[in-house]
Amino acid sequence: MQLGLIGLGKMGGNMRERIRRAGHTVIGYDRNPDVSDVGSLAELVERLDGSPRTVWVMVPAGGATQSVVDELAELLSPGDTVVDGGNSRWTDDEKHAAELGAKGIGFVDAGVSGGVWGLQNGYALMVGGDEEHVQRLQPIFEALKPEGPYGYVHAGKVGAGHFSKMVHNGIEYAMMQAYAEGWELLEKVDSVTSVREVFRSWQEGTVIRSWLLDLAVNALDEDEHLAKLRGYAEDSGEGRWTVEAAIDHAVPLPAITASLFTRFASRQDDSPQMKMIAALRNQFGGHAVEATE
Amino acid sequence: MQLGLIGLGKMGGNMRERIRRAGHTVIGYDRNPDVSDVGSLAELVERLDGSPRTVWVMVPAGGATQSVVDELAELLSPGDTVVDGGNSRWTDDEKHAAELGAKGIGFVDAGVSGGVWGLQNGYALMVGGDEEHVQRLQPIFEALKPEGPYGYVHAGKVGAGHFSKMVHNGIEYAMMQAYAEGWELLEKVDSVTSVREVFRSWQEGTVIRSWLLDLAVNALDEDEHLAKLRGYAEDSGEGRWTVEAAIDHAVPLPAITASLFTRFASRQDDSPQMKMIAALRNQFGGHAVEATE
Amino acid sequence: MQLGLIGLGKMGGNMRERIRRAGHTVIGYDRNPDVSDVGSLAELVERLDGSPRTVWVMVPAGGATQSVVDELAELLSPGDTVVDGGNSRWTDDEKHAAELGAKGIGFVDAGVSGGVWGLQNGYALMVGGDEEHVQRLQPIFEALKPEGPYGYVHAGKVGAGHFSKMVHNGIEYAMMQAYAEGWELLEKVDSVTSVREVFRSWQEGTVIRSWLLDLAVNALDEDEHLAKLRGYAEDSGEGRWTVEAAIDHAVPLPAITASLFTRFASRQDDSPQMKMIAALRNQFGGHAVEATE
Amino acid sequence: MQLGLIGLGKMGGNMRERIRRAGHTVIGYDRNPDVSDVGSLAELVERLDGSPRTVWVMVPAGGATQSVVDELAELLSPGDTVVDGGNSRWTDDEKHAAELGAKGIGFVDAGVSGGVWGLQNGYALMVGGDEEHVQRLQPIFEALKPEGPYGYVHAGKVGAGHFSKMVHNGIEYAMMQAYAEGWELLEKVDSVTSVREVFRSWQEGTVIRSWLLDLAVNALDEDEHLAKLRGYAEDSGEGRWTVEAAIDHAVPLPAITASLFTRFASRQDDSPQMKMIAALRNQFGGHAVEATE
Repeated sequence: MQLGLIGLGKMGGNMRERIRRAGHTVIGYDRNPDVSDVGSLAELVERLDGSPRTVWVMVPAGGATQSVVDELAELLSPGDTVVDGGNSRWTDDEKHAAELGAKGIGFVDAGVSGGVWGLQNGYALMVGGDEEHVQRLQPIFEALKPEGPYGYVHAGKVGAGHFSKMVHNGIEYAMMQAYAEGWELLEKVDSVTSVREVFRSWQEGTVIRSWLLDLAVNALDEDEHLAKLRGYAEDSGEGRWTVEAAIDHAVPLPAITASLFTRFASRQDDSPQMKMIAALRNQFGGHAVEATE
Repeated sequence: MQLGLIGLGKMGGNMRERIRRAGHTVIGYDRNPDVSDVGSLAELVERLDGSPRTVWVMVPAGGATQSVVDELAELLSPGDTVVDGGNSRWTDDEKHAAELGAKGIGFVDAGVSGGVWGLQNGYALMVGGDEEHVQRLQPIFEALKPEGPYGYVHAGKVGAGHFSKMVHNGIEYAMMQAYAEGWELLEKVDSVTSVREVFRSWQEGTVIRSWLLDLAVNALDEDEHLAKLRGYAEDSGEGRWTVEAAIDHAVPLPAITASLFTRFASRQDDSPQMKMIAALRNQFGGHAVEATE
Repeated sequence: MQLGLIGLGKMGGNMRERIRRAGHTVIGYDRNPDVSDVGSLAELVERLDGSPRTVWVMVPAGGATQSVVDELAELLSPGDTVVDGGNSRWTDDEKHAAELGAKGIGFVDAGVSGGVWGLQNGYALMVGGDEEHVQRLQPIFEALKPEGPYGYVHAGKVGAGHFSKMVHNGIEYAMMQAYAEGWELLEKVDSVTSVREVFRSWQEGTVIRSWLLDLAVNALDEDEHLAKLRGYAEDSGEGRWTVEAAIDHAVPLPAITASLFTRFASRQDDSPQMKMIAALRNQFGGHAVEATE
Repeated sequence: MQLGLIGLGKMGGNMRERIRRAGHTVIGYDRNPDVSDVGSLAELVERLDGSPRTVWVMVPAGGATQSVVDELAELLSPGDTVVDGGNSRWTDDEKHAAELGAKGIGFVDAGVSGGVWGLQNGYALMVGGDEEHVQRLQPIFEALKPEGPYGYVHAGKVGAGHFSKMVHNGIEYAMMQAYAEGWELLEKVDSVTSVREVFRSWQEGTVIRSWLLDLAVNALDEDEHLAKLRGYAEDSGEGRWTVEAAIDHAVPLPAITASLFTRFASRQDDSPQMKMIAALRNQFGGHAVEATE
């Protein structure tokens, strides 16, 4: 089938390639003319034959996605379908579905996992929306997903795809934190000769074997003590939203939240709160404080 | 080769079977005569031919392991080797090595992972000790470990095996907590039709695919909403030791520790600390309290 | 001076009393005619002499406050001032200020602390808004605040009052949790004869002496082991908002967030996430699970 | 009465002064001859008249305390009493009591709070030991404690004093963390004009008023944004022991533990665990990493 794909960055570019390899026609648009197949969104919509048309949006969550949805609401026709495959907050999905639905345009939200490995291994897809809209996209979902029985789910109503992907990322935060904590502790112990070899051994037969563990071994093979890296980690929004959703539902998420907070702390050159701790210790105990340089 | 194996419970019994399948001779001893090959530890040692003899101890950590080590120190001869494959605290290993070493008996500590799946898939082994003692055990380690390049590591000096296994379990706690938190949050959201199917889809193509995730799907297939289970979890000691080791080394372990604390809380019928919170809220705000029945 | 006061519940009723004791005129309105001085909001506004009028809103945050603000926007005149002294989210303040400002009506937000002790001890006030509006209210703030140099601050622009009060409550959560954790641990130890007497002794000379500690001793005097209480605690919204604000600003709040999560957990009859932990332990280790009754 | 006092550092020196002001005789010993009243422990014991003698040990916990106790076991006589007022781990107390008890010497453990303010305000005392030994020390306890009904407790058996003091310090960690988190969050918000003034206002009428809050205001008066301090905090051992005791008793301590871990993290120039997070993000997502300089 034919698909319009908006956003050809690290993710979108590889997805175009994977869908084409499956024999579908993809017309891609990106603001960067070097990678774009067409010169404008309007041209992309024109180039899509007949009706119904299907357009996949793969641009940054928030304002960028909103403005593409606004444009598509003008350019598309009743019966067409828009898929938001970006990392949008699930609360945006209902708004987009309503805005497009008012014009008779269908909306599907798709959480996409797979990162730089997706072109080769396939992208896991968590999809939300009405059955009729989801059904229309099925050939594209089949092209993108990994082979085998897993890697795709119609998770529920509009928003369920992004919500599931968001929780996936929250879990990911805590799993990464789990390995990271274990790694730091093992590195501190004199009796262990090579932490890297311990990690490598865990890849089979253990309870904690996983793809993330395989990646950790790859990373340690490149730089055994990660000496070239700073202990600095961004967060992409989905960890934050997971905690906010948990607060809305009064669900305690101690491990996921701890994993988010260590990232926040990793980006501080000096910790304001620990200045206050140092100040208080000095006040009551006369404990020495360290001065900034 | 020939191995004496002490402790033929859930783990030891299956290990005897797997080692025998690899063509080795195992003489097993257990206090339970139904499963034991010999009537006593002394008989087990006598039945092992010639020298050097090798005895694998697979009994509960702490007192049980200590008393077996004490007996073996009397029964074995210089040049023999003892392996402690139980879940001993790494700090016990040096004591056992010294006690046996004083008699010329070698000591190796082995952290063993694999649970009820080990007979079929192999047991992951993290081993600590001197190269000469570890070398002597190599055929047994080969028999126990999974096929393929992973699942075995000589982690370092005496204690390094149990330390690595302990950290493995700490990581395991936080990974389980990660999936558990995500599952609870997804179950709270109306838009998601089936959390089980979302979990199932994650088994391929996602960043969080893992063996624990596969097990979670198994569990949800047996009981989709885990309605038959109480939210009650024991802890086996290794999570506690991981946190204690982290404290010794001043390593922050927020996610692993949170995972330990949720287990503690799960075993309380009512939370004493939350009684105090309720009491304080009542004191300053006149907030209603709930009475015990 | 003259003040209209809307909302005469546990807080508002006592505040009316304290302001009157200071010699001011308070006309109070409440939906409950037993405590109300007037029959309607319109009547309250009419009864306030001349201009400018000042109306203090002390109703539940959210919808109730919004609808009172909407009504006041219609009833009041340019130059009048509205104070929101409820537990509104700071993000509502700018909206209310804009809505009223469009009619020339001033807006001040006031975070109020003091609970059931406020009538006697005074209410601590954290106030946000333009200097001219805050100035107009000064006699009322003086009447409400405790004697002495503390207990009142003009914290900043519109929203700063509620934001400061919200952080106050976040800190309160973690302080309560601190005492609660310590209390539970002491209660577990055989060597300590009376935890209540230990708490009592801490009221002077220690680093942790505080008003909350005094309240804890009061509570233990009423019920030494809090045996009559359930370990169940509501949360009022401000703890949640504190964590959300921290996430917005990428500030790690591990202790405050932990304190919020223990409250969430205290309200669950059984923990869904711990069911998953139990299920996973059973899957990989054959560990026994507890069935629901 | 007459007291031998060993250790005349920041704490011991001031305690000698406070006890003398109350009219008692103190013979102090310190390795530093500039502050010592006698030249050796032996001389100190000799100088104490008759029997029973009472010696207060105020030296660093661990090896230093142990060696003083060992010496005193040789120098003192049956019927004498030793008080350990240092920050010893409660588990040491039973050992010291047994060692001294074997010679007929009594032992009392005393947790002492008050820091640099103790000389002026008095020291809070949490005391463990047999009633007969505690009774003998009563005049000294009276001299040290603050005026008024609080600040002293005979908490229970040997060890109960240090255990109570340890929990006191654990609570202190989490209270400090509570204020520190709130301070950092307030400092991030543009609408709040002066966080220092907000803190100052909290000193009366609020739920969170406390001595630590007063100290925080002092610190902010000296350096409004704590710009001169590094966010670096040592920990003295008692926070660690609190968490270890909690683990022994399966008590969840999320806020206190979080407060300990933020201190650990504050002392790391770069976070090893966050290097692993950065490495994993790079592996699966191609996310940029920051290189060490």
